[in-house]
Amino acid sequence: MLKSRHLLGIADLEPDEIGLILDTADAMTEIAARPIKKVPTLRGRTVVNLFFEPSTRTRTSFEVAEKRLSADTLSIAIAQSSVTKGETLLDTVRNLEAMAPDMIVMRHASSGAPYLLARLCRSAIINAGDGMHEHPTQALLDAFTIREHKKRLDGLKIAIVGDLLHSRVLRSNVQLLNKMGAAVWACAPATLMPTDLARFGVRPTTSIDEAVEGADVIMMLRIQHERMHGHFIPSTREYFTTFGLTPARAARAKPDVIIMHPGPMNRGVEIDSDVADGPFSVILEQVANGVAVRMAVLYLLAGHEAQAD
Amino acid sequence: MLKSRHLLGIADLEPDEIGLILDTADAMTEIAARPIKKVPTLRGRTVVNLFFEPSTRTRTSFEVAEKRLSADTLSIAIAQSSVTKGETLLDTVRNLEAMAPDMIVMRHASSGAPYLLARLCRSAIINAGDGMHEHPTQALLDAFTIREHKKRLDGLKIAIVGDLLHSRVLRSNVQLLNKMGAAVWACAPATLMPTDLARFGVRPTTSIDEAVEGADVIMMLRIQHERMHGHFIPSTREYFTTFGLTPARAARAKPDVIIMHPGPMNRGVEIDSDVADGPFSVILEQVANGVAVRMAVLYLLAGHEAQAD
Amino acid sequence: MLKSRHLLGIADLEPDEIGLILDTADAMTEIAARPIKKVPTLRGRTVVNLFFEPSTRTRTSFEVAEKRLSADTLSIAIAQSSVTKGETLLDTVRNLEAMAPDMIVMRHASSGAPYLLARLCRSAIINAGDGMHEHPTQALLDAFTIREHKKRLDGLKIAIVGDLLHSRVLRSNVQLLNKMGAAVWACAPATLMPTDLARFGVRPTTSIDEAVEGADVIMMLRIQHERMHGHFIPSTREYFTTFGLTPARAARAKPDVIIMHPGPMNRGVEIDSDVADGPFSVILEQVANGVAVRMAVLYLLAGHEAQAD
Repeated sequence: MLKSRHLLGIADLEPDEIGLILDTADAMTEIAARPIKKVPTLRGRTVVNLFFEPSTRTRTSFEVAEKRLSADTLSIAIAQSSVTKGETLLDTVRNLEAMAPDMIVMRHASSGAPYLLARLCRSAIINAGDGMHEHPTQALLDAFTIREHKKRLDGLKIAIVGDLLHSRVLRSNVQLLNKMGAAVWACAPATLMPTDLARFGVRPTTSIDEAVEGADVIMMLRIQHERMHGHFIPSTREYFTTFGLTPARAARAKPDVIIMHPGPMNRGVEIDSDVADGPFSVILEQVANGVAVRMAVLYLLAGHEAQAD
Repeated sequence: MLKSRHLLGIADLEPDEIGLILDTADAMTEIAARPIKKVPTLRGRTVVNLFFEPSTRTRTSFEVAEKRLSADTLSIAIAQSSVTKGETLLDTVRNLEAMAPDMIVMRHASSGAPYLLARLCRSAIINAGDGMHEHPTQALLDAFTIREHKKRLDGLKIAIVGDLLHSRVLRSNVQLLNKMGAAVWACAPATLMPTDLARFGVRPTTSIDEAVEGADVIMMLRIQHERMHGHFIPSTREYFTTFGLTPARAARAKPDVIIMHPGPMNRGVEIDSDVADGPFSVILEQVANGVAVRMAVLYLLAGHEAQAD
Repeated sequence: MLKSRHLLGIADLEPDEIGLILDTADAMTEIAARPIKKVPTLRGRTVVNLFFEPSTRTRTSFEVAEKRLSADTLSIAIAQSSVTKGETLLDTVRNLEAMAPDMIVMRHASSGAPYLLARLCRSAIINAGDGMHEHPTQALLDAFTIREHKKRLDGLKIAIVGDLLHSRVLRSNVQLLNKMGAAVWACAPATLMPTDLARFGVRPTTSIDEAVEGADVIMMLRIQHERMHGHFIPSTREYFTTFGLTPARAARAKPDVIIMHPGPMNRGVEIDSDVADGPFSVILEQVANGVAVRMAVLYLLAGHEAQAD
């Protein structure tokens, strides 16, 4: 069983808890293969999806996962509504939990927002991405996808390339892969490189060739236009020339390398279409696995809840 | 049974109908305490939530209530869609009801909009707030909360303080509390005081100290920035000094006073956080009771429908 | 059974397939008359409603249809989300289908978008309107409505009047009515008249009197302000004078003429309220039939799917 009733970040998970989530997700993938992709596990439970940032992919993935488990779902995109009426984040969430949902899946632009709420609210909270901090279910689905292909995580060389500075996906993945014994190389232009990466046991480099050399896994990160208020890269064309993943660069990795991307992709910016759609790409598997991993998390946290009753 | 197939305003309800709704809500609160918070009462019924104004709290409360009763729900936020295509309100609603929903929950910026539709449409209509006119389920959930704490409504002194001029919550509450025998004191700056309050049996005052003196219930209303096109108050700081509910002011009320707010709160404007989060606050209970009261209304109106079949 | 697993356009349907859909919709209308308007046909199936253009009416109609068949529904309005993050349409849809929905109902501003996706994706795709190209379920519900009143389609004179140039409703209707043997007259100002109408077996005219003379059916099309970047009509008032459907003009048609409009209507622009709300109007029947026809399409495509398993 998971120790916490929340899933806030990879930082809080023990390796055996990560293993439990991945094993449970294994069982969940079987449900997606059925004609009737539905089990009654969460019947009568209400899950609120509370998104303070726009998201199609993650929100949809959670919604599909919740409906496959027969939960009642409520999706709330907060942008022009209560926030503009001057209410605090805490009041908004306390109000929602006064309606007695069983779980709150939450995305927020501020790093740490779900942690604050988990301390102050009674509901179980799942972090669906907080600022530049963590995105734990993304790291879990990435790990699940790697494990499916490599049968293990420890001892692998994983190259993560792209906008490291603004990436919560990086932060969650680095912690998970470290805990599970993988070696992480992180590559970005100097302007998009966090200063404290080495402290997290990551090998930083500004050379993509060095990063992908002999890699088991290459994980490309999106160049996030919407977060770039400064001038981090001269142009997307120059970025592609220096850091884009081309077939030639991918050929430096292991012959059975898998290519990953959390999406949405900027084709021709961080990744060449020949790679994105090529034989080593597992990008769409990641999406499919995302549903199974989120079903596993919902299932395990609901069990926690039941225990507490 | 309720006389009307619609719930348009408190104005149309007899005291015994109000009592019936509150008693039914009592039974509904029990469902929220179960692990599986769901009953099959409205299975196969469709409820459309038609919101012409943004709303997180009320819409979510209705959706949770509908799902707890197993209804199929459809939430439609109309802002950029058909309205921008030049269709009239009546055509929009007639089109929706041609799809044969069982009930339409509706919020609209124009006072009286739900009354117009109830006359011209076949669907049962629940008013979820119309302009500055009525917000009947809010008044019902407030009454329910008061009754839970005070065991009665008649003979109580209720102080309502804040932006009285723009408040549909005030209008619905005053009518309900009058019908049930409570004494309502209403306090606002002169610029936010409706001229005809005394006609409704309300004692108007511009002194919050006078309003809350010996009160059983203090109900704070939101300063609605988004409705203030004119200059009604000099500054929020000055408003707080003169009309904000502080612990010192709350101490003038009865020792067992309850403090209410329909939300969303502006902390430090109309209410001090020490009061909002203090021992007399029942603000989050109001939210929880909102679901039960809305379940009661949906249940009673659905029974009405069944009778008519 | 339908030959294709998609419903992309009327162009792909044989007359007997159109007949099958209309006959199935006949059976579905019976469900809408029940107090519990729900059958378990699509229980456990997921239908994604993917709308790249705002739509209240069509999206709601599909959602109601899906819920009556007990499908799990996911509605995604894409406007500010992934599209603004630079993802291609194909990537957005491939991502959704990686989550294994059973069907995708899709509206897109680009003509042909659903065809592209049907070739490249595995999911069954239903076109809910693509640019100025096709809107097949609208033509099917129109045909269903005509058949209910006239007991046949062949040999009827159908007048379609309005903005023909920008109308996907026209394109789908012309093809369907041609296939079923009706004679279509199309009327618009010269600036809103497509050049190739005659090629489709349509009799074009700029005289509404000629178009509606002896007609069995008059179908009015909306003047689509939002598509008019040029100056197609001098003013809406002048448009009404020359092309608006008034009672006097409607009187030129057969005595048992039916008046149709796909909505949303611009009263006083293309149609007089006396006609829209008059005894010959079947405009709200069209909306009700829309749910039945969409249930029929979902049911038949799901059967196709099951066959393929």
